[in-house]
Amino acid sequence: MKFTIDPHVINEGLQKVSKVVSAKVTIPILQGILLDVSNEEIVLTGSDGTETVQYCIPVDGEAVDVVEPGKIVITKQTVEILKKAKKVIHFTTNELSLNVKFARSDFDLNCLDGEEYPKFPVIDLRNPNITLKGEEFSDFVRKTAFAASTSETRPILTGILLNVEDGKSTLVCTDSHRLARISQTCDSDEKFKIVIPAKSLNNAQKVFNMENDVKLYGTETQILLKCGNILFLSRLLEGNYPDTARLIPTEHKSKMTINRKELLDGLEILKELSNSIESTTSGVVKMHINGVCSLSSYQDQRGKGKNDIEYSSYEGEEDFTISFSVKYALEALKSMEAAEVDFLFSGDMRPFLIAPTSTEQVLDELQLILPVRTY
Amino acid sequence: MKFTIDPHVINEGLQKVSKVVSAKVTIPILQGILLDVSNEEIVLTGSDGTETVQYCIPVDGEAVDVVEPGKIVITKQTVEILKKAKKVIHFTTNELSLNVKFARSDFDLNCLDGEEYPKFPVIDLRNPNITLKGEEFSDFVRKTAFAASTSETRPILTGILLNVEDGKSTLVCTDSHRLARISQTCDSDEKFKIVIPAKSLNNAQKVFNMENDVKLYGTETQILLKCGNILFLSRLLEGNYPDTARLIPTEHKSKMTINRKELLDGLEILKELSNSIESTTSGVVKMHINGVCSLSSYQDQRGKGKNDIEYSSYEGEEDFTISFSVKYALEALKSMEAAEVDFLFSGDMRPFLIAPTSTEQVLDELQLILPVRTY
Repeated sequence: MKFTIDPHVINEGLQKVSKVVSAKVTIPILQGILLDVSNEEIVLTGSDGTETVQYCIPVDGEAVDVVEPGKIVITKQTVEILKKAKKVIHFTTNELSLNVKFARSDFDLNCLDGEEYPKFPVIDLRNPNITLKGEEFSDFVRKTAFAASTSETRPILTGILLNVEDGKSTLVCTDSHRLARISQTCDSDEKFKIVIPAKSLNNAQKVFNMENDVKLYGTETQILLKCGNILFLSRLLEGNYPDTARLIPTEHKSKMTINRKELLDGLEILKELSNSIESTTSGVVKMHINGVCSLSSYQDQRGKGKNDIEYSSYEGEEDFTISFSVKYALEALKSMEAAEVDFLFSGDMRPFLIAPTSTEQVLDELQLILPVRTY
Repeated sequence: MKFTIDPHVINEGLQKVSKVVSAKVTIPILQGILLDVSNEEIVLTGSDGTETVQYCIPVDGEAVDVVEPGKIVITKQTVEILKKAKKVIHFTTNELSLNVKFARSDFDLNCLDGEEYPKFPVIDLRNPNITLKGEEFSDFVRKTAFAASTSETRPILTGILLNVEDGKSTLVCTDSHRLARISQTCDSDEKFKIVIPAKSLNNAQKVFNMENDVKLYGTETQILLKCGNILFLSRLLEGNYPDTARLIPTEHKSKMTINRKELLDGLEILKELSNSIESTTSGVVKMHINGVCSLSSYQDQRGKGKNDIEYSSYEGEEDFTISFSVKYALEALKSMEAAEVDFLFSGDMRPFLIAPTSTEQVLDELQLILPVRTY
């Protein structure tokens, strides 16, 4: 293997694929990065065994020039050394020793055999199951992934359900205490249902350049996302995702429309007192609606607090009180952009919905939160 | 106690004094911050028991208006709540309960008795022992504190020796493997020698606004630093600081003048391979001088590296080799600003000096490093 490359070009790729590489992985070869060099392209691969990122650099004879193809796994130290290069880097291998030269530096670095690196599955990239704009993909992830469970007690709840049916794609994510759902029409006539780890979608979002479209290819056990010159492969979660449709109330008894930002600020101010003293777990606030939306913390040994917010409108019985997790409410409100949001209540012990205020059409974005029993 | 204050004014002060407050401190009252409110000023105090910061806010009747003086210790949660205030804050105490109001928020917060907070010593602020410009103080700390020991095996080595004598102030810091020394003429005719914890000087530097002068007041066991409206109090270290004068060679056999930045870059590139695989402890580089300054790492299972740097001049025997800690060399070089530095060698097993290249006068800034035995 012998090639030269501009340091910025290879370092951008190494930085992207390194995002999924973990020092905690027990398979030593996965702690390195695969360089697969052909006369057409240099493909960098990083993986932690469940998620794999590939970054493709075309050979242009200028910034990248290949003399002799080859395949080798470079170590973390080699990646760190390359980061410091400011001039053209010359790579030459001799068996499992890699010679790296740039400016007045000269390194002989031990590497691992590229043939030993796990093979990337062969997936036909011509027909994606769905294609999304980069920004849409980013929104989809940002508006749902936070609601996934972080506990492995029910592994299926660490994922996001993607359901494509009747020209509509819907993402649902729940940890059984709250739920996020968004849906959008899509130009696909396919019908499928997969559960993707929320962590993988978050990582993919960090790696992708959102100016490009994101193409999605599903297989039985894996999902491949393609965005520009980057491929992201993740396993799927197995098992049945809970039937969430029947959890979401279709009717409501009362409805409050309120400024989203003011409500967020009010909750942030109360957060300190609501959070439990001993741990960092989230606390509970009480919302009392009676001419004004009054948020308050429960009295504890540190004291108590209250914050009043004017709502824009309220339909339903006055003097209504409901208690819920500050963290859930903050995350739900932060996932939205609307200036105003609707709270739809069905009773003080029934799940309530938060959705951007909209006078038109069916909601395509909603957050559900279960109240907390506080007697 | 009753007063109103602009949120920016109190939050700037709380942020400064919070820097030394630690949740690890076992005395509960030290986890809070003392508010001492008089008709002239509001003094905020934070402490971890060994370091104390006081921030003084004058009462101007506008941004700060006091109705009734008082003294109370507010908790960490109260500090967090105040951070979120954007409008004028109203403080009122009733026994040990503090009522805080701003905009549409209303809190009743439990506090601790201000009288129980450790007393700040009474020190006469009229006659400082030395006065330094803020930037000078900052340079003094930056150029010496890194060389202090972080191990408590010899507590005295965690400090910096300040020696004022014959109109000259000298700071010396050593962990017994390397040493930093700077000195400067000062307008004091006093004579004293104290050892200040390096950690305290680092913290003081973070808290101070370097546009102001730094005034230093020493007592038997404590040092007080005053910078603008901020007071910083620290204990002194007890014991005899090692006699470092005889460690510093006064003659040298060879001298290399070299570009500081190029040498830094060369060492940074080799750092990855020099550092030990298992731990983050610093590794060793070999410097070979023979027409060029050639840095190299020792061969290990990851490989080896070499970096050549042109020197500006070299006087002494050619083919000279010396090995030393990469970390020590990097820190010493980073503490300097000079474009070129001199390396003064007395032999491959003798301590060597690094100092900014200067054709005039006696050096007032030098770094000493002990070489590493590598056979």
